[in-house]
Amino acid sequence: MPRSFLSHLECPQCGTTYDADIIHHLCACGSPLLARYDLAAAAREVSPADVSRRAPSLWRYRELLPVRTDACEVTLGEGMTPIVPLVRAGTLHRLAHLYLKDEGLLPSGTFKARGAAVGVSRAKELGAKVLVMPTNGNAGGAWAAYAARAGLRAVVVMPELAPLITRHECAVMGSHLFLVDGLITDAGRLAGRAAAQAGWYDVSTLKEPYRIEGKKTMGYEMAEQWGWSVPDVVVYPTGGGVGLIGIYKALQEMQAMGWIGPKLPRFVAVQAAGCAPIVRAWERRAAVSELWADAATVAFGINVPKALGDFLVLKALYETDGRAIAVPDAEILAAQQELARQEGLFVCPEGAAALAAAIHLREEGWIADGDQVLLLNTGTGLKYPETVAAQPAVIPADGELPVDDIRG
Amino acid sequence: MPRSFLSHLECPQCGTTYDADIIHHLCACGSPLLARYDLAAAAREVSPADVSRRAPSLWRYRELLPVRTDACEVTLGEGMTPIVPLVRAGTLHRLAHLYLKDEGLLPSGTFKARGAAVGVSRAKELGAKVLVMPTNGNAGGAWAAYAARAGLRAVVVMPELAPLITRHECAVMGSHLFLVDGLITDAGRLAGRAAAQAGWYDVSTLKEPYRIEGKKTMGYEMAEQWGWSVPDVVVYPTGGGVGLIGIYKALQEMQAMGWIGPKLPRFVAVQAAGCAPIVRAWERRAAVSELWADAATVAFGINVPKALGDFLVLKALYETDGRAIAVPDAEILAAQQELARQEGLFVCPEGAAALAAAIHLREEGWIADGDQVLLLNTGTGLKYPETVAAQPAVIPADGELPVDDIRG
Repeated sequence: MPRSFLSHLECPQCGTTYDADIIHHLCACGSPLLARYDLAAAAREVSPADVSRRAPSLWRYRELLPVRTDACEVTLGEGMTPIVPLVRAGTLHRLAHLYLKDEGLLPSGTFKARGAAVGVSRAKELGAKVLVMPTNGNAGGAWAAYAARAGLRAVVVMPELAPLITRHECAVMGSHLFLVDGLITDAGRLAGRAAAQAGWYDVSTLKEPYRIEGKKTMGYEMAEQWGWSVPDVVVYPTGGGVGLIGIYKALQEMQAMGWIGPKLPRFVAVQAAGCAPIVRAWERRAAVSELWADAATVAFGINVPKALGDFLVLKALYETDGRAIAVPDAEILAAQQELARQEGLFVCPEGAAALAAAIHLREEGWIADGDQVLLLNTGTGLKYPETVAAQPAVIPADGELPVDDIRG
Repeated sequence: MPRSFLSHLECPQCGTTYDADIIHHLCACGSPLLARYDLAAAAREVSPADVSRRAPSLWRYRELLPVRTDACEVTLGEGMTPIVPLVRAGTLHRLAHLYLKDEGLLPSGTFKARGAAVGVSRAKELGAKVLVMPTNGNAGGAWAAYAARAGLRAVVVMPELAPLITRHECAVMGSHLFLVDGLITDAGRLAGRAAAQAGWYDVSTLKEPYRIEGKKTMGYEMAEQWGWSVPDVVVYPTGGGVGLIGIYKALQEMQAMGWIGPKLPRFVAVQAAGCAPIVRAWERRAAVSELWADAATVAFGINVPKALGDFLVLKALYETDGRAIAVPDAEILAAQQELARQEGLFVCPEGAAALAAAIHLREEGWIADGDQVLLLNTGTGLKYPETVAAQPAVIPADGELPVDDIRG
């Protein structure tokens, strides 16, 4: 049995197909390409029960991943992040079946590790030597790590305002790091030009077809953890949108293989009020988004003014009776505090935005009483110290704690 | 079948036993107490194959954990951290079978989550309301999180020099945080006095018997991941030493249940040259350590001048033909860089100390050619940005990357 049932690449816009074993970036028509598998053959050879017996990493779904040889699997043990119930926050907001998948528990502390693990593995397999990418920080940290593990060079370009710790991640991994006095779109332009000039492998979001294959494992895991079923609503913080597209792709693959039934979750794309191009497009029932001017939000990971895969995100929303919603930064920070104080979870602002959105949608009635709601927390709050104020008192070593001021 | 086979508490110094279902801290003789289980009954009811089929969290070993009721299990999905092979670093240092268990992939980013999950669960079950503790930072972050999830109050006292991010963790969780102008021993004195004065539940290292029960799950996981066997050498960064004691305790329990054979790993306790009381004691074949004056190291988590459980650490070293070793800060930081550049792992300095120690022990010949060596990385480097310099160039948005300066 082959390790992977990858069969070809396909353009979701014009239908053109490409050989998956040759390096391709975008389709000739300008669209991203998607990896396709011989799902019928995969379904004959592997079952949900088989994968459930394997080690708890995203590679348990290897037949549905694009890496053909064991030697090219570049792994730090990533995957099978927990889904935790949010009983107290749920009760507070009349969300009786509220859950959070905690992607903070991955190498580099964010869901970006999934795309990097699979993307770097496949880049290595295809013979790439230098990877170049724009990033809002977290993808850079993740790709720098996996590139180092693979023995590849990484060139990372991030906005000056990206989370500081992501600079340290890139630096410690020995990657070439540049800051740009601008947004991720500016970083993308710089990276794209350099890639063309030097012949580097451009791993910008959706400019190569394998990052999304890593991200889609969130969907496989979700279904497996849900007992090979799905929740009613999936709430996803949306910047480039690859996670959402990936989860949807995974569900469609699992349906084709008979691993899950016909039910799909309603997808919610959450954006920050300061950068909400997908929300604006969804409100107009548009097929694509328009560049958002003067984008700014504390949830820096979703500060993406225009996403290459916007049409795929919108398609997923329309096809699942889903929706897009924007939440202001103040509500994002309040939700972050609430998840910590009520649930013991220090999430990134992007993940907190998912809770803020769910609260709105419940109030509106869009989320109904019995709905099972899954929030995706895309990363750990440890990477965002500036979102939390801490001014503790200093006690001399020979002093006393102010016991009387503290009550149980 | 009961959920837990916890039977009683026992003093490892004088043998006195205590009722496990009443709050106890130290033995009357001053020693820490250890939790004991009816291992014969547990072995009849549960097998390695049974636990391997359960969800990948530390609670898969619930029969050997002290929590009696499902409702008191306070969990964020922690456990089953990966063991990753270090092929390139291993080759470089003639350690052909070198592995690292990555405890950075836990809630709050360190192995402290294990002790906090189990310790807080049991504190809740026993009726505690306010938990107070000294910490070098990471345990504070972890216990603050689990206390918040449990609905308990946490009072945390840490040195001013503790990693900054751990202040933010305590603050966001709503715990009461105090800094002390001194070391963890000073924080411990303040916490102990406050506990006595206010009747709070003192959860200082080994002052209650359940934190170690969480930590010991590293040992259960290690054995399970090793195919119900053990490596030849386990290298452990040692401050309070509870992790090492816990792993050793787990191995003894598994031997008593017949889950693993008679082979034990040789334990290595690694300390920083700037704070090495266990190493000094081991060199003198002493049973206990002496307070280390003017303790200071970049590996702040192991900056513990005198550990309450020192005699248990030393016992584990003597009984397994193990040893203690000190490594200077410069070697710790070099090992941290090496693990990043060679292996894609951004580890904390404590974890890096384990690699620095293994390199020495191989050079000395204490680690032999064919030895399987497992390093414990106790936390993520994301919590220690100051250990890595990052001064990237800034490029204007309309500029160009210096392509010619970068070579694959």
